[in-house]
Amino acid sequence: MKLREPALKALKDLFGERLLLAEEDILPYGADASSLFFKPEVVVFPETKAEVSELLRLAESFNFPVVARGSGTSTTGSSLPVEGGMVVSFAKMNRILEIVPEERLARVEPGVLNGDLKNYLKKFGLFYPPDPASYAFSTIGGNVATGAGGPRGLKYGTTKDYVLSLEVALSGGKLLKTGPTTLKGVVPYNLTPLFVGSEGTLGLIVEIVLKLLPLPEKRKLYLVFSPVESKTLELITETLLKGLTPASAEFVDRTTLKVIKEKVEEKVRTDQILKTTESLLWVEFDGRIEEVKRDSGAFEIILEQKGLSFLSADKEEDIEALWEIRRGISPSLFKLGPKKIADDVVVPRRKMVEFLRYLRKLEEESGISIASFGHAGDGNFHVNLLFKEGEEERAKSIRENLLKKVLEFFGSISGEHGIGFSKRPYVVWELDPLQIELMKKLKALFDPKGLLNPHVKLP
Amino acid sequence: MKLREPALKALKDLFGERLLLAEEDILPYGADASSLFFKPEVVVFPETKAEVSELLRLAESFNFPVVARGSGTSTTGSSLPVEGGMVVSFAKMNRILEIVPEERLARVEPGVLNGDLKNYLKKFGLFYPPDPASYAFSTIGGNVATGAGGPRGLKYGTTKDYVLSLEVALSGGKLLKTGPTTLKGVVPYNLTPLFVGSEGTLGLIVEIVLKLLPLPEKRKLYLVFSPVESKTLELITETLLKGLTPASAEFVDRTTLKVIKEKVEEKVRTDQILKTTESLLWVEFDGRIEEVKRDSGAFEIILEQKGLSFLSADKEEDIEALWEIRRGISPSLFKLGPKKIADDVVVPRRKMVEFLRYLRKLEEESGISIASFGHAGDGNFHVNLLFKEGEEERAKSIRENLLKKVLEFFGSISGEHGIGFSKRPYVVWELDPLQIELMKKLKALFDPKGLLNPHVKLP
Repeated sequence: MKLREPALKALKDLFGERLLLAEEDILPYGADASSLFFKPEVVVFPETKAEVSELLRLAESFNFPVVARGSGTSTTGSSLPVEGGMVVSFAKMNRILEIVPEERLARVEPGVLNGDLKNYLKKFGLFYPPDPASYAFSTIGGNVATGAGGPRGLKYGTTKDYVLSLEVALSGGKLLKTGPTTLKGVVPYNLTPLFVGSEGTLGLIVEIVLKLLPLPEKRKLYLVFSPVESKTLELITETLLKGLTPASAEFVDRTTLKVIKEKVEEKVRTDQILKTTESLLWVEFDGRIEEVKRDSGAFEIILEQKGLSFLSADKEEDIEALWEIRRGISPSLFKLGPKKIADDVVVPRRKMVEFLRYLRKLEEESGISIASFGHAGDGNFHVNLLFKEGEEERAKSIRENLLKKVLEFFGSISGEHGIGFSKRPYVVWELDPLQIELMKKLKALFDPKGLLNPHVKLP
Repeated sequence: MKLREPALKALKDLFGERLLLAEEDILPYGADASSLFFKPEVVVFPETKAEVSELLRLAESFNFPVVARGSGTSTTGSSLPVEGGMVVSFAKMNRILEIVPEERLARVEPGVLNGDLKNYLKKFGLFYPPDPASYAFSTIGGNVATGAGGPRGLKYGTTKDYVLSLEVALSGGKLLKTGPTTLKGVVPYNLTPLFVGSEGTLGLIVEIVLKLLPLPEKRKLYLVFSPVESKTLELITETLLKGLTPASAEFVDRTTLKVIKEKVEEKVRTDQILKTTESLLWVEFDGRIEEVKRDSGAFEIILEQKGLSFLSADKEEDIEALWEIRRGISPSLFKLGPKKIADDVVVPRRKMVEFLRYLRKLEEESGISIASFGHAGDGNFHVNLLFKEGEEERAKSIRENLLKKVLEFFGSISGEHGIGFSKRPYVVWELDPLQIELMKKLKALFDPKGLLNPHVKLP
């Protein structure tokens, strides 16, 4: 046990009923979307920055670990108390503090849900683009801590591109403002991006200032069917080279297609197309009406030239219905096997076809299903190995091979899911000793006692 | 002297004729656009990363200061050898190493000129947006080291938004890659932005990977005349609130107008408008043809409603001719007074009018000319005090008052010019002790002997 009685007493005084200790209450806070489990000793629900500050002061004096938690949607265990100690849920710090339309800024607490913010901003004609698959129920604080991406990354970038400034409670309890909230400002070293994606290891984010964009007037979505798997990937590159920038370009490979075929069939009038389809691509254009009209026209010419069939939608509900198929992939993957290893690797766009071919070869040789899908517009693939009990070792070896291939291509082993606990062994594959040494020195600078999210992110 | 004979000998062996020692050769490297002067002891011109690495190894063993220099366009002395020692000119590391159209990326050496890169990219239909006033002759490395902005910041952001990854030679000579060159990647802590704007104090940038955009098809520029000074500022806010995002919105106040009036008169057919004009605003729209048509139409309606006169241009040469007036401001300011103190402060957009009114009051009370102009779309004003010999103290006091007002508005004392040597006394006004403590700790982590750009950036 990391938390002894005097510490618990001080915490009870601070949080009263907003502190959970009973076994049945704290168990859910030991799990997230990673399938890992580490039992916390205590869970608290701060309501103010001052409370976060105070709990970090207590953590330092009583020497217990502190793990920040949004909605627990991490797929890598970023929000799990690996060493026990305290889980800090930001569920009660969920206020939208301020929207400033003339600055196109929002100031929010970390527990605000991404989807709630998106909806709230509509009345101001404003738009917060990052859209991780979990956006309806994941928190902005969690999105910032992991540097979350999503389909719209292709046109709009990821969370890091929208964080203007942060307030962070540092180890020991001091509150740091990382920079001014004006649109420019080069006075301090730019610390804001250091915290984005740091997975709770450098400080606890207590307030976030986000940059916003005007809400796009119009959307148009295409669902493209290709009889040759790699043709959808080539289509992305060709589209970009023509100077078009879709908001999203989401890919589904042959193996993934199997698990969503029925859902797709409901949408296609004849199943003729689908019989010969190996791969799908969702391509969405958004922006001003004239721009979307022009870009989608140019895109249809490319589709025609390549002889690809497609469905299209331009009404909000039809667009969302087609996207539903894409969002339904992850939960359906278990049809291919009861056990899963999931990665979100990134390769340069010009290596996508070669990478896919490599995965297909691995799949054929091993007999283990390799389902790849996701943000191919950024070269970011969710690669899922699906297998049976007893095939763990073979799956692990396939995973390691594919990660090596990614690094041969000068790619990255994580585009948006982060390292968490589960990918730590592979960090040393991507980073060289100097990079790791600097990460460790930075960790020691911000968290000298190693109390913040221990065993997460760093190798 | 910081550089003694054994160090000089080693450097001569390394650089041969690419080392300057003679008084008349090194003097130009003691000055930049700040009007400050600090004499270097030696100037070297590395051609490779390995040479930069080696000179930093020598600096560490022989304990001499190293100051990085692009084209010396810093207005704050960021590239000056305050303590003497070595100036490292990146003039010979000026190769565009790679353009990857399908990734929309460029890999360049730090000495490449911003304008040269822009021109070179045109043949690929690609675009590097950041456009500091010095873009034709300032280097990408210098732009990155200072976090340079420019008029296009309003729509496109600043240099930091385009740096995907860096290679940096650290104190002692080790080469650090800050991250992968894929479009996504959350494995390491994000160190790239820490170096952007660090003004050479944390490492010497030896290679830069930049994100690019498709080249806009069409531009349309308005030069708006307002009989009431603050109306141009209100126009910006109103335009943004209508959901329009100009590429640039550049403001000129009453005092600045005096020095460019003649140039403006050449463009206006009758001088009737100009007689009643107090303020100018350049507003440019760019993008796809349809988008520019639509947005400029909407903008003209706003202009009409507000009863504002304007000129417009949509041919490249006419657009550039109108922008020439804007670019000619800085050199013309001396008409108002032989001495100048220049700041580039930022205030929230909603405080711009109030800030301008405050400057006018300062001007009236003091009799010293206060010329404000620049990137008002971002709330970023270049405020210039012009005065005569003997008025230094009064000007200094006005400067300090206006910086205090900026900070009262939660603004920043530097939007893009950096701190350099000249603004160091004011850093403690903007940053709190914790922010400064962290900056100093980071400096010590990356440069324990304090050899890189000493007396720059940090208070």
